[in-house]
Amino acid sequence: MNPTITAFQRSPDGGRGLARDTRIRWALEEIGQPYDVRLVSFDQMKQPAHLALHPFGQIPTYQDGDLVLFETGAIVLHLAQTRPGLLPPGTHPARVATWVFAALNTVEPPIIEREAAILMESDTAWHAQRLPMLNDRIRARLSALSARLDGRPWLEGAFSAGDLMMISVLQRLRSSGLLQEYPALAAYVARGEARPAYQRAFAAQWAINGAPE
Amino acid sequence: MNPTITAFQRSPDGGRGLARDTRIRWALEEIGQPYDVRLVSFDQMKQPAHLALHPFGQIPTYQDGDLVLFETGAIVLHLAQTRPGLLPPGTHPARVATWVFAALNTVEPPIIEREAAILMESDTAWHAQRLPMLNDRIRARLSALSARLDGRPWLEGAFSAGDLMMISVLQRLRSSGLLQEYPALAAYVARGEARPAYQRAFAAQWAINGAPE
Repeated sequence: MNPTITAFQRSPDGGRGLARDTRIRWALEEIGQPYDVRLVSFDQMKQPAHLALHPFGQIPTYQDGDLVLFETGAIVLHLAQTRPGLLPPGTHPARVATWVFAALNTVEPPIIEREAAILMESDTAWHAQRLPMLNDRIRARLSALSARLDGRPWLEGAFSAGDLMMISVLQRLRSSGLLQEYPALAAYVARGEARPAYQRAFAAQWAINGAPE
Repeated sequence: MNPTITAFQRSPDGGRGLARDTRIRWALEEIGQPYDVRLVSFDQMKQPAHLALHPFGQIPTYQDGDLVLFETGAIVLHLAQTRPGLLPPGTHPARVATWVFAALNTVEPPIIEREAAILMESDTAWHAQRLPMLNDRIRARLSALSARLDGRPWLEGAFSAGDLMMISVLQRLRSSGLLQEYPALAAYVARGEARPAYQRAFAAQWAINGAPE
């Protein structure tokens, strides 16, 4: 039986591929693991049946027989260990994990904070003053990451789960204009998006979220 | 040779144990792995020698022979896999990883956002209006976590790396009063802090950060 993931019945991003199930789909495509998808509504996400899988009432979840996982980072690392494709030979798996955590814990938080400010505080008196501060916190991370890439195509030798997660995080900046300030990072994201596995993952979520009703 | 971690030469928290090296020390103590510590100043953290270990210029780092790791979550998961003590027998390692990610990616971000607001925006016109919003975002996470614990002593059977990380995250709320609104979580944190391995880790960082100069 295929593993089953959950995804939004209708993603708030309208098919731009920024919902976190796209990250899991991409990982599954990279390792060549077929999967099933169960769509959940916002209402269902807060019901006991879904909370039993994901205590914080979010998507995605991952079920494979008795094993139930949530948290995108944990699911991607687990998939990286089940089949070849996301842990390059010759690279220590803990180095790959380091980059997965760096993407989620060091690079993504200021990006999410910026999104939350735009979503929830746009009509406040303080938003216009706060936004430049938030942008500068993001720039500090992008600058360090760009320096670390330093001409390398990927973070650790060949493409890994760390790149998958880092690129997925950076994609959230597309509409901000911030990514374009760092051409090496924009090119890095483009390299990830050109991968056939990413293309398949994007198309699969687009079929649900992007196609007209 | 023992592995070497880096820590603040003088932690901004004055020895309360909230700097992230305490999490690594605790993990090392749980698995009974002796370690060496190299202290770095804020200036050294931004120099090339340290950036080669940690591209984002932070602590802690972990070095064991040729292996260099950064990101607390990755280091703790790596330690969990090297010696018994943080992956309870009978629990799938990916479940433990799920809780490490949940602590760092779902529970900690709104806590850090609150700390950043207090540190950087206390003197702004908007701070008094924004703080209640931030507190409510934290409460949503605490409420879900408390429901999930539901009388269990630990998140997955016996004590694991997931508990170590979740408790370390919740400790940051001590001065906020928010943790006390959830007695099950306050008791959970106290259970973690009562562990001899935590006591040793706390004492080791206190000797550097808390003792009078």
